[in-house]
Amino acid sequence: MSVLKGIIPPMITPLKGNDELDREGTVRLVEHIINGGVHALFLLGTTGEAQSLTYRLRYEFVELVCRQVNGRVPVLVGITDTCIDESIRLAEHAKANGAVGVVAAAPYYFAPSQQELIEYYTALADALPLPLYLYNMPSHVKVFLEPSTVKVLAEHPNIIGLKDSSANMNYFETLMYTLGDRDDFALYVGPEELTGECVLMGADGGINGGANMFPSLYVEMYDAAERHDIDRVRELQRIIMQISTTFYTVGKYGSSYLKGVKCALSLMGICDDYLAYPYRKFRHEERERIRKALEAVESKIK
Amino acid sequence: MSVLKGIIPPMITPLKGNDELDREGTVRLVEHIINGGVHALFLLGTTGEAQSLTYRLRYEFVELVCRQVNGRVPVLVGITDTCIDESIRLAEHAKANGAVGVVAAAPYYFAPSQQELIEYYTALADALPLPLYLYNMPSHVKVFLEPSTVKVLAEHPNIIGLKDSSANMNYFETLMYTLGDRDDFALYVGPEELTGECVLMGADGGINGGANMFPSLYVEMYDAAERHDIDRVRELQRIIMQISTTFYTVGKYGSSYLKGVKCALSLMGICDDYLAYPYRKFRHEERERIRKALEAVESKIK
Amino acid sequence: MSVLKGIIPPMITPLKGNDELDREGTVRLVEHIINGGVHALFLLGTTGEAQSLTYRLRYEFVELVCRQVNGRVPVLVGITDTCIDESIRLAEHAKANGAVGVVAAAPYYFAPSQQELIEYYTALADALPLPLYLYNMPSHVKVFLEPSTVKVLAEHPNIIGLKDSSANMNYFETLMYTLGDRDDFALYVGPEELTGECVLMGADGGINGGANMFPSLYVEMYDAAERHDIDRVRELQRIIMQISTTFYTVGKYGSSYLKGVKCALSLMGICDDYLAYPYRKFRHEERERIRKALEAVESKIK
Amino acid sequence: MSVLKGIIPPMITPLKGNDELDREGTVRLVEHIINGGVHALFLLGTTGEAQSLTYRLRYEFVELVCRQVNGRVPVLVGITDTCIDESIRLAEHAKANGAVGVVAAAPYYFAPSQQELIEYYTALADALPLPLYLYNMPSHVKVFLEPSTVKVLAEHPNIIGLKDSSANMNYFETLMYTLGDRDDFALYVGPEELTGECVLMGADGGINGGANMFPSLYVEMYDAAERHDIDRVRELQRIIMQISTTFYTVGKYGSSYLKGVKCALSLMGICDDYLAYPYRKFRHEERERIRKALEAVESKIK
Repeated sequence: MSVLKGIIPPMITPLKGNDELDREGTVRLVEHIINGGVHALFLLGTTGEAQSLTYRLRYEFVELVCRQVNGRVPVLVGITDTCIDESIRLAEHAKANGAVGVVAAAPYYFAPSQQELIEYYTALADALPLPLYLYNMPSHVKVFLEPSTVKVLAEHPNIIGLKDSSANMNYFETLMYTLGDRDDFALYVGPEELTGECVLMGADGGINGGANMFPSLYVEMYDAAERHDIDRVRELQRIIMQISTTFYTVGKYGSSYLKGVKCALSLMGICDDYLAYPYRKFRHEERERIRKALEAVESKIK
Repeated sequence: MSVLKGIIPPMITPLKGNDELDREGTVRLVEHIINGGVHALFLLGTTGEAQSLTYRLRYEFVELVCRQVNGRVPVLVGITDTCIDESIRLAEHAKANGAVGVVAAAPYYFAPSQQELIEYYTALADALPLPLYLYNMPSHVKVFLEPSTVKVLAEHPNIIGLKDSSANMNYFETLMYTLGDRDDFALYVGPEELTGECVLMGADGGINGGANMFPSLYVEMYDAAERHDIDRVRELQRIIMQISTTFYTVGKYGSSYLKGVKCALSLMGICDDYLAYPYRKFRHEERERIRKALEAVESKIK
Repeated sequence: MSVLKGIIPPMITPLKGNDELDREGTVRLVEHIINGGVHALFLLGTTGEAQSLTYRLRYEFVELVCRQVNGRVPVLVGITDTCIDESIRLAEHAKANGAVGVVAAAPYYFAPSQQELIEYYTALADALPLPLYLYNMPSHVKVFLEPSTVKVLAEHPNIIGLKDSSANMNYFETLMYTLGDRDDFALYVGPEELTGECVLMGADGGINGGANMFPSLYVEMYDAAERHDIDRVRELQRIIMQISTTFYTVGKYGSSYLKGVKCALSLMGICDDYLAYPYRKFRHEERERIRKALEAVESKIK
Repeated sequence: MSVLKGIIPPMITPLKGNDELDREGTVRLVEHIINGGVHALFLLGTTGEAQSLTYRLRYEFVELVCRQVNGRVPVLVGITDTCIDESIRLAEHAKANGAVGVVAAAPYYFAPSQQELIEYYTALADALPLPLYLYNMPSHVKVFLEPSTVKVLAEHPNIIGLKDSSANMNYFETLMYTLGDRDDFALYVGPEELTGECVLMGADGGINGGANMFPSLYVEMYDAAERHDIDRVRELQRIIMQISTTFYTVGKYGSSYLKGVKCALSLMGICDDYLAYPYRKFRHEERERIRKALEAVESKIK
C-alpha cells in the first residue's frame, strides 16, 4: 500500500463561542481548502484547538466536516488525549463518519517514559478501528518519541506514519534515514517553514497550518519540491517565511500562531475568529497588524 | 471565614481496569484515610490519575466517595482540564454530591501566558458553583502560576487558596510572604517531604500523597509543626523521608511515586493497584522492593 | 572533625571596571561583613561573578581579601571552572593565601552525566590541596548533583560538604536525610529565603547573598533557628522576604538579584556597583527603586 | 566583500593528557583535513573541547595549527568565554598567528537577556582585532540568539556571520529569510545532518564535526547541494546519516558525539583519543563498536 502524500492542512476549528461551532464558517473553510488542491484534511490537531473543546463539539465537528468533504479528499482525525478510552471512542466516531485515519500525540499530563510510550501506543493501535499516525509534539506533550521508539512502533501493522512538529531537523533526518525507504510508512513535517526542504530530502508531505489560509501556496511548494525545482522552492519559501514572520509573531504569546491564523481567516471572510479558552482572539491593534500582513502576502500570491 | 487547615490526602483512584472502578477498594480506602484523622479529602488530582480516566469514571468516583464520606470531612474535587466547559460541568457534579470546593491546575496542552492564566481562572471562577483552589504544578502543566498572577487571582471572591506542588520553596515562601496573612486564603504544600517545614513557617497544611497509606503519620507531623515541636518534627521527618526515598524511587519512572503508593495500598490489602494508561503497575521484583520498604516503615510506625 | 556552621556570605566582587578591582571597596566590604558576626566568607561564587572575571583579577581578589580578613574568620574560595587544571591552580593560590576550603559547581559548558560527575569530582578532590565543598547549581550548570552521586562523593576524604542553590527542597531534604547525621559533612543552603526553615530542619548554615548588605540579619536568623525560636524565625523571615521581593525583582533580568545587591552596596557607600560583562549595573530609575527598598528595610532593621 | 563559503571543519583538539597537546597528531589531522578539500578550518569550538582546556594549551594549539596550515586555507578561532577580556586576549593571539576571524557563543555561566546579549556582543565586536562570527548554541549556553537580536548585531561592521548549532530549522530558516540576501553576512549550519538541505535552501556552508574524519564527504555534499543535484544529495545524506546514527550514539552520554569522533580518529591512526575532563574516552567495548561503524562507512566511501 502506498502512503498518502502531499499537503494535509490541520484545520482550525471555527467557533462562535467556547462550546458553539461556527457551522457556516466550517463549510466555507472546507470549500476554501479543498479548492486549493490539498491532498487530505486533518481535523482536531493542535491547530484545531482540540484539547480546548468539549467532546460534544469535537464529535459535531467531525460529523460536519466529513459530510461536507463527502469523500473528495481523505480525512484524518486527531484523537490525542490523556485518557486512552476517550481516544478510542473518538476514533470510532471518526470511522463511522468516513475518516480514513487517526493521529495521536503522546498523553500530555503525565510524561511517560519511552517504554511506557511503546506500551501505550501498542495498546492504542490494537484497539483502534482506523490506522494510526504518530504525532511528535514535544513542546506540548513534554516527551519526544525517540527514533528507537518510533522504529519499534512502526512495526505495528496499524501504525502507518508520523507527523513531526518538533522543528528539530536532526530528529526528522534520523527518522527519514531509518524509515524513509518504507513505502508503507509516511513521514510528514508540521512546521510549514520546513516543508520545502523536507520534501526535497524525501518526506511525504506537510501538515501545515498556513494551508488554512493559502492552501494552493503550500500545494505549489510541495509540487516544486517533488520535481526538484530548487529555484521555485526558494521563491515560494520567501512567501512562506513572510507569512511565518508576520502572521505568527504578533504579540508575545505562545499562541501567536493560532491567533494569527484565525484572525486572518476572519479578515478573509471565511469564518469567525473566536478562540476557545485559555486563548483569546486578537483585538484592534493586533488585528490591524494581521490585516496589513495579509494584504502584503495577498499582493504576492495574487 | 477561616480556611480549611491540616492534612488533605490527594486520594488515589482505586481501579480494576482502565475504565472500571474498584468500588470495594474505594470504600476501604476512604475508611482507612478518615480513621487516620485527616482534615479533608481531595479527589481527582495528579495522584488520582484524573487525566487518565474517562469522565464517566470520574463522575462515578466523586459520587461514590462523597456518599461514603457522608459529611465526616470536607471533600475537594480536582477539575483540572484543558477544556473549561468540562471543568465547570465536573464542578457542578461535585457540588451536587456534596463537595465543598474544587481544585484546578492550569490547562495543560497549550502553555498559557500569565495574562491568559488570569483571564482563564477569572472566567472559570466566575462560572463555578463552588470555591476554587489554584493548583501550581509546573512539571506537569509547563507553566508556573507566578506570584504576581496569584496575587491578582486571590482578589477574586471565589478563589480561596492554592496548592503548590513545585517543590520550589523560594516560590512558596514568596506566596506565604504575600498572602500568608490573609485568613481567607489558604496555602497548602504538595510534596509531603516539605509539610513539616512549611507548616512551621506558616502554611495551612499539606496535600500529601503518602497520607493514602499512612494518614495518621502526616496528621502527627502537622500537629507537631503547629505546636512548634521541632524535635518531634525532625523525628517524623525521618520516617517521611524514609517513605520518600524507598517507596517513590523504585524503577526509573517519572511515575515511580504513583506506582509506589498504589502498590503499597495493594500490599496493605486496601485496594487494587491497577494503573490507568499510560502507566502500568509494578510487577514481581519491584513489588518485592515495595514490600520490604513497607515492612521497614510499618515497624517504625507500629 | 566538626563542620563549619552558620552564615557564610558569598561575597560580591567589588569592581571599578571589567578587569579592575575596587580595592578600597573590597576592604570596606570585608569589614562590614565581619562586623555583622558571620561565621566565614565565601569568595568567587556566582554572587562573586567569578566566571565573568579574568584569572588575574580572581587571584588578586583572593589575595586582598585573605590579607584583610587576616584569620578572623575562615575563608572559602570558589574554583568552579570548565577546565579542571584551572580549578586546581586557583585552589593552590587560595591555599597559599590562607583559605581553608574550596567550592566547585560542575563544569558548565558540557553537561556531564552523573557517572562523569563522579569521575570528575573524584579527580578534582584527589588533586586539590584543600578540602572541597560541592556546589549544586542546576540553573547555571544545567545538571543536578543527584543524591546518589552526592552519596558516593561524600565518601571521598577530601569532600566535606555541599552547598545547594537549587531551591528544590525535596532535593535538599533528601540530602539531609541521607547525609545530615554525619558530623564531618556540611550541608548549606544557598537561597536566603530558605535559611530559616533549613536550619530548623537540621542544615548547617546558609550561604546567603543578602548577607553582603545585612550580615547580622542572617546571623540572627541562623541563631533563632538554631535555638528553635519559631516566632523570631517568622519575624525575621518577613524582613528577609521583603528584601527578596523588593531588592531582587527590579527589572526583567535573570540578573536582578546580583544587580540589586551591588546597587544597594553602592547606595550604602560600601563599594562600586560596576558589574562585569555580560551584565550592566542599574541606572537611574532602577537605582531609585533600590534606594526606596533599602530605606524601607533599614527602617525595620535599624 | 563576499563571504567565506563551504565546509569549515570544527577541529577536534588532539590531546595526550589533560594539559598536553598531541602535537604530531595535530599535524597529521591538519594535513588529513586540508587534503579533503575543505574551505577553511575552525579551532577551539565545542568539538575542540575549548572550554575544558587551559588557556596555555589553547594558545599553543592556535600557534601550532596556524603554522601548519600556513595560509593554505583560512583559519577561524573560537573565543567563546564567560569573561570578555579573555575572549579579546585570545583573539589577539589568533590574529598574531594569522587567523582571519573569530567565533563566539554567548557567555555560558550566567544566562543573559537578549538586550544584554546585544550589549555584550557589541562591546566584544568593538574591541576585537578580527571579524566576529556569532555562534548560536542554546543547548550549551542556555540562551538563543533570537532572530531580532541577530538582526541588530548583523548591522555591526565587525560581525560578519553566524553559525547555528540549534538544529531548530524554523530558527535557521528565519535567519535565512531575514539575512540570507546579504552578501556580507554568512550563515553556516552546525549539525552535519542538515548541511545538504541548508545549502539547498541558501546557506553558505557547514561547520560539521564529521569532517574531521571524512572531510571530502562533506565537501562533496556541499558541492552537490550547490549545483542542485538532489539525487546526489540524497545518496550522500544516507552516508552522513549512517555516520550520525552509528558513530555518535554509542553510550548514553551527551558526549557520545565527541567521543565517537575522537575514537574514530584514533582508530584511523591520525591522533590520540584522550578527552579532557569532564569527559573520558571510549574503552574496549565502545571502541569496538566504533571500529565496526568505521569499517562500514569506509567501505562505502572507498
